[in-house]
Amino acid sequence: MAGVIREAGHAEVQSIGAGATNQAIKAVAIARSYLQEEGIDIVCVPSFIDVAIDEEERTAIRLLIKKG
Amino acid sequence: MAGVIREAGHAEVQSIGAGATNQAIKAVAIARSYLQEEGIDIVCVPSFIDVAIDEEERTAIRLLIKKG
Repeated sequence: MAGVIREAGHAEVQSIGAGATNQAIKAVAIARSYLQEEGIDIVCVPSFIDVAIDEEERTAIRLLIKKG
Repeated sequence: MAGVIREAGHAEVQSIGAGATNQAIKAVAIARSYLQEEGIDIVCVPSFIDVAIDEEERTAIRLLIKKG
């Protein structure tokens, strides 16, 4: 994640379920500490997004991670 | 959460465990959609924080929510 933000300026992850969302937030916190050493500050913007999985509609969490 | 940000300009929540962190992120996403209607954009900054619970050291997720 730190690499993607360093190169592209932003990253996006989607998660379904508490475990996946927890992992995603931890990944942001870890990427943030890496990038902070390089003087890059990142923030994340959570929103809900509907995704279709096996023709079933599920609500996922979308995390946009960008330079803050 | 939306109310706290509206009044104080920022909010902070700490969570331990996947379920609590998931709830916290959902709360941010919901607060964000409320505040967006008022023209206020918010972002969140996750980090790790060590907290002592019953004299045991646990690692919590700290979410700082601020105007973006």
